[in-house]
Amino acid sequence: MERKADIGVVGLAVMGENLILNMASKGFTVACYNRTTARVKEFLDGRAAGKSIIGCYSVGELVATLSRPRKILCMIKAGAPVDQFLALLTPHLEPGDIIIDGGNSHFADTSRRVAEAERQGFLYVGTGISGGEEGALLGPSIMPGGSAAAWEAVRPILQKICAYTDSGEACCDWIGAGGSGHFVKMVHNGIEYGDMQLIAETYQMLRDGLGLSNQQLQEVFGRWNEGLLDSYLIEITSAIFGMMDQEGVAVVDRILDAAGQKGTGRWTVATALEAGQPLTLIAEAVFARSLSAMKEERVAASRLLTGPEAVFAGDRAVMIADLEQALYAAKIVSYAQGFQLMRAVSAEKQWRIDHGGVALMWRGGCIIRSAFLGNIQQAFAEEAGLINLLLAPFFSQAIERAQGGWRRVVAASAQLGIPMPAVSAALAYYDGYRTARLPANLLQAQRDYFGAHTYERVDSPRGRFFHTNWTGHGGSTVSSSYGQGKASP
Amino acid sequence: MERKADIGVVGLAVMGENLILNMASKGFTVACYNRTTARVKEFLDGRAAGKSIIGCYSVGELVATLSRPRKILCMIKAGAPVDQFLALLTPHLEPGDIIIDGGNSHFADTSRRVAEAERQGFLYVGTGISGGEEGALLGPSIMPGGSAAAWEAVRPILQKICAYTDSGEACCDWIGAGGSGHFVKMVHNGIEYGDMQLIAETYQMLRDGLGLSNQQLQEVFGRWNEGLLDSYLIEITSAIFGMMDQEGVAVVDRILDAAGQKGTGRWTVATALEAGQPLTLIAEAVFARSLSAMKEERVAASRLLTGPEAVFAGDRAVMIADLEQALYAAKIVSYAQGFQLMRAVSAEKQWRIDHGGVALMWRGGCIIRSAFLGNIQQAFAEEAGLINLLLAPFFSQAIERAQGGWRRVVAASAQLGIPMPAVSAALAYYDGYRTARLPANLLQAQRDYFGAHTYERVDSPRGRFFHTNWTGHGGSTVSSSYGQGKASP
Repeated sequence: MERKADIGVVGLAVMGENLILNMASKGFTVACYNRTTARVKEFLDGRAAGKSIIGCYSVGELVATLSRPRKILCMIKAGAPVDQFLALLTPHLEPGDIIIDGGNSHFADTSRRVAEAERQGFLYVGTGISGGEEGALLGPSIMPGGSAAAWEAVRPILQKICAYTDSGEACCDWIGAGGSGHFVKMVHNGIEYGDMQLIAETYQMLRDGLGLSNQQLQEVFGRWNEGLLDSYLIEITSAIFGMMDQEGVAVVDRILDAAGQKGTGRWTVATALEAGQPLTLIAEAVFARSLSAMKEERVAASRLLTGPEAVFAGDRAVMIADLEQALYAAKIVSYAQGFQLMRAVSAEKQWRIDHGGVALMWRGGCIIRSAFLGNIQQAFAEEAGLINLLLAPFFSQAIERAQGGWRRVVAASAQLGIPMPAVSAALAYYDGYRTARLPANLLQAQRDYFGAHTYERVDSPRGRFFHTNWTGHGGSTVSSSYGQGKASP
Repeated sequence: MERKADIGVVGLAVMGENLILNMASKGFTVACYNRTTARVKEFLDGRAAGKSIIGCYSVGELVATLSRPRKILCMIKAGAPVDQFLALLTPHLEPGDIIIDGGNSHFADTSRRVAEAERQGFLYVGTGISGGEEGALLGPSIMPGGSAAAWEAVRPILQKICAYTDSGEACCDWIGAGGSGHFVKMVHNGIEYGDMQLIAETYQMLRDGLGLSNQQLQEVFGRWNEGLLDSYLIEITSAIFGMMDQEGVAVVDRILDAAGQKGTGRWTVATALEAGQPLTLIAEAVFARSLSAMKEERVAASRLLTGPEAVFAGDRAVMIADLEQALYAAKIVSYAQGFQLMRAVSAEKQWRIDHGGVALMWRGGCIIRSAFLGNIQQAFAEEAGLINLLLAPFFSQAIERAQGGWRRVVAASAQLGIPMPAVSAALAYYDGYRTARLPANLLQAQRDYFGAHTYERVDSPRGRFFHTNWTGHGGSTVSSSYGQGKASP
């Protein structure tokens, strides 16, 4: 009887390799397989040499090498490749075996695959894994969901290789049924888009409006990293401004301002549209990347379109302090919107996602890790049913303190012509959310005027609909007289 | 031989009925059918009585009543009901017969159905019809696309019943292949969301910030309707403020501020996300409706969350003039974004949409009709390959004049705490679009730092990608040394 591996990993791109090395370093025996089998040999002869890693050259061999119930972690490209591999894999499996998708699959695909796998007698886990290459190697944030019966079997491995918070809590816990693990990872990525965009806008105001040098930028972000904004992204931002190339030019100034994106930000916004949840900040972040990618068009437009002189003439120290407050307040709004989306989708899908648990999982290993997530975890610990983060005393007070600076920043952005779409969208959302009476009564009047869409009334219970014959004509296409509301079916 | 009808209409909801009456009034003989056949009798005995309208009580009877090639206009609920009806209908048809879907189908569904129908030997037209109930009766804007061979057959009917501009041009022309007709209608609806939201935000500033009465609002919007903003929506807005109920209270004040939506706005934004086109204003408009619908949550939040005193203390006449400019400038941005989306999707699908033609079709009959669309038509007439409306001299000059007021309005919105998400998003887009160097170089640095996503350089041709080893460690997961960019595959 040959030695059996604890887990198999399919897909030897850098994330897959690093997870394997992580597992091997924690004492697990790992079997690996890659469609192009030359990669297997290369890996075994290279980074895997001398470690408890077994190379396999066919799916059958991989499956035969695993102890039961088999655990097979797929680290392959999202979409059709996953379905194609599952079709190859499942004929080799036995009831109770566990398939784990650790790629960036869309949560709806994962929900479908969980159901299919369970119909075939297997267990299926879709898990978000965040932290990039380094996280995969040293301890990522892991967000698993799917077949609940798989959790006890995969838990010893996943909670061994994951990141831990400073206070020793594992950044990996069971999220819920279906595609909930990939859903939470998707929202994480959307929030990452938002965090990055907020930093970028602040950078632009500091660079173009206040004329800060890279050295000053490094210093400002370094200082912010010791305060409210303490986070991995602020930390690396500071480091980025300090990185010089061989000619002594800052690398950041060599880089083209055309941002790429891989799709999860877009998915998050599309999900929010579908769920009817306002996710304005992340939407602006996704669109800002699209706009940045139109580089040549922008350069041409910059010669044709006019604006004010973009030089801030006020007190620079005050503006820098205001920008810190604006960044912090807008970040609170971004997370409030993201958790609001999670709450809505979790309720709709009956996933019962533990929001505090999610905040905990994001505290270590992943790109958005920050002190701030500890405050979010705490807010949900104080009130598990919290409807919106903005309503938690910690955050409502934080915004109360920050809003003076935040408002000055948005006003300055408009007056100077330096765009801050996400910071501005966050403020508009905050002001909209705290407005008891929005102007949507006019929207409803217009919709009823031109399309007889009916409306609800302030003096009538919700769910009763009225129509007004606004024009006094229209024959039988309108059914009630002036102002005399009539309930519609 | 019994008399033959020129066209058949399926679905006797109000839009279907009104289109039938419109056709009959223009001299066509129209056969009609409805799944619940009692509706047919009711219609024949009622509004259709004495007109050239033939009631049919089965699909077979409907088909038998039509002259060839048969033209069958479906006015039924979008989605599965259309496919279900097509499955019932097509067995009765002969090659060359024409199916027309005049409902609010998603353009991707229409593209699929065009291909399927053509495979079966039929012709298929998906057409947007805008103008609400009254437009359907008196002359809507009609946007047909699909099987090009159908156009000559349906043109005499559609261009007879459609709206006409004041200068006598038909607001109906062939859009292009596949789902292009429904796509253009979808973008129209998205723009409608944007126009309505801009008006609503302006209303809120006038109402809450400046304290205008409904009578003053009626007057302000009435005056604006005689200037740059001359449009159907501004006209009905003014009228709405003048509508009193039997107790002498303005109807608009009776209406609950919780806006409904039917999905086409959401589709437009989802399409823009997919196409990588920044459609920020319409996204804010869609999300603003979602936020408005959270009425109870907002009322609760209004008691907990603080903000500045929302009273405008400056010169009211100046602010009212500024608001007119802000509304106009933001509207230009909204249309610029919408046409940018059309251009991108048209290019991708090879539809070759005529943008000036679309502007013309929207000038009459539909909800967004305005003097402004004449300026857009003119801009495309001057330069058919116009990349972005903002670059047309008419519009760049218009924004140059408007931007002072626009910037003051956005700044006031932030300082007063009166949310203007769409007006603000439009300004941020304008300022982003005219920025040659956005801060996306930092985004790319961050992405390369944590995920080795690589970046392009300002001093290298587009399409070459570089990577920096930012941390100086990471072993083989990073492949080049400090600042020494290396092209990635």
